[in-house]
Amino acid sequence: MKARVHVTLKPGVLDPQGKAIANALHGLGYAELGDVRLGKYIELDVAASDAAEARARVAEMCERLLANTVVENYAIEIAD
Amino acid sequence: MKARVHVTLKPGVLDPQGKAIANALHGLGYAELGDVRLGKYIELDVAASDAAEARARVAEMCERLLANTVVENYAIEIAD
Repeated sequence: MKARVHVTLKPGVLDPQGKAIANALHGLGYAELGDVRLGKYIELDVAASDAAEARARVAEMCERLLANTVVENYAIEIAD
Repeated sequence: MKARVHVTLKPGVLDPQGKAIANALHGLGYAELGDVRLGKYIELDVAASDAAEARARVAEMCERLLANTVVENYAIEIAD
């Protein structure tokens, strides 16, 4: 099964990388650009008997390694 | 408008970060885990008259800064 994970900073957490990207894009002339938030997108191949099991295991992986749950949220999509 | 951009390595391009994540997760006991691919997820607030204009400008931003189009693909979603 294919799991797609989005790891994003929690609202209110400062995003210096996003700010740097926004500044660079403003410098390239994209004045219409507002806020920029940078996150991680991770695709994982997981062997599991069903989607629920895959989701549970990937959630564990997020809690233990993929996301810093103090300042990051994660969202999991499971595809066959 | 909110633009969501996924920047991912092109198929066949080696992903050392993905490999490192996979090795770490195997070390934590997730033997059922196969391939891991790491990409960037970027959310941008863009002022535009319509979705088509927003998409075109964000595509330009991807071509010029957000993606290294030699080894990366990008996908753009526009939400109101």
